[in-house]
Amino acid sequence: MKGLSCGTSRIVGCRFSIYPMADNFVDIIIGALKEVDTSKVWMKTDDVSTCVRGRSEHVFDVTKAIFTHAAKTGVHVVFNGTFSIGCPGDSEGDTYMSESDERLNEEASRVEKVEVATQFALYPLNNPDYMQVIADQVGVAADHGTFTKGVHYASRLDGDVHDVFQSLEEAFVNASKTDDRSHVTMTAAVSANSPSTKDN
Amino acid sequence: MKGLSCGTSRIVGCRFSIYPMADNFVDIIIGALKEVDTSKVWMKTDDVSTCVRGRSEHVFDVTKAIFTHAAKTGVHVVFNGTFSIGCPGDSEGDTYMSESDERLNEEASRVEKVEVATQFALYPLNNPDYMQVIADQVGVAADHGTFTKGVHYASRLDGDVHDVFQSLEEAFVNASKTDDRSHVTMTAAVSANSPSTKDN
Ligand SMILES: [Ca+2]
Repeated sequence: MKGLSCGTSRIVGCRFSIYPMADNFVDIIIGALKEVDTSKVWMKTDDVSTCVRGRSEHVFDVTKAIFTHAAKTGVHVVFNGTFSIGCPGDSEGDTYMSESDERLNEEASRVEKVEVATQFALYPLNNPDYMQVIADQVGVAADHGTFTKGVHYASRLDGDVHDVFQSLEEAFVNASKTDDRSHVTMTAAVSANSPSTKDN
Repeated sequence: MKGLSCGTSRIVGCRFSIYPMADNFVDIIIGALKEVDTSKVWMKTDDVSTCVRGRSEHVFDVTKAIFTHAAKTGVHVVFNGTFSIGCPGDSEGDTYMSESDERLNEEASRVEKVEVATQFALYPLNNPDYMQVIADQVGVAADHGTFTKGVHYASRLDGDVHDVFQSLEEAFVNASKTDDRSHVTMTAAVSANSPSTKDN
């Protein structure tokens, strides 16, 4: 039995920012955006962040691509954002759900090798068993070999950007499938080229 | 009836990063930290983020102070973090809960005038009425005059850094009081000195 007032769209969104710690941060962001095909997602940028919406494949494809192309400059760059699915009433942009599942940016992203340190947290919102959902998905990242440790309020992933984004995507998609109306969010801070000593 | 396996501490934490978009980002962060008294919070920094834990007053006092002192440089600086309370089993650092409520950094922060644009989202985790809790706290920010609009997955606040942090603190603390074992998280991206046109 489902509430009639709730949206039933399974559109995925990510509200994120790319932070290049450099005087020429605008050029780095614009340069990365130019290399990414965003035609399969709804996208809007304001002065605080960018929001992309569409099928989960394309949301992860586009966010990884923008971050990877910014990070390949060698500058210390951080992706910080929140992925979301199932927010009640959230259906705007549903036309993008009919795009095919072929990822438009994977080929160009994949050739870039970027080591990242990541902290992420899953928030299953309308699920009384949420702590188990979180534990299960940390287990998935552990199986991938990307999970390095738990820290207060987050789990840490280290490795190649492609492996880490794959763990993030699987954790998020798995958690979103625990119920056909689940509302799940996931924060992720993905850092490349930090001058600080790795803490893993 | 309460589960025996859960922590009962009401310690508040924030895992956050300060991102100065400048070549001298390390100096800006270190400079800001030097101006902030962190003796009333547990604090640990790694290569991705910093975690502070203690009474809510001091967590908000310290995070606002670090951000404000970084932003007063005039550089484009963003605070991006997640505040948390009530995570089951989270009790480490409880000694900091016996500190007095006097804020150690408010006086020095208050003299700085910094205009900010903010996007925040509340996530009440173990509450079936979570959408109402969120709506109520967006209403609190509207009453403060800081709320400017809703965007996908977040609410926008604009104004003076002190007014905006007060709205964030009240929204978070109010949401955390909906139940004596509530588990609530709140993400916030607070941006100062952006070269982009304000979108409010
Ligand atoms: Ca965040």
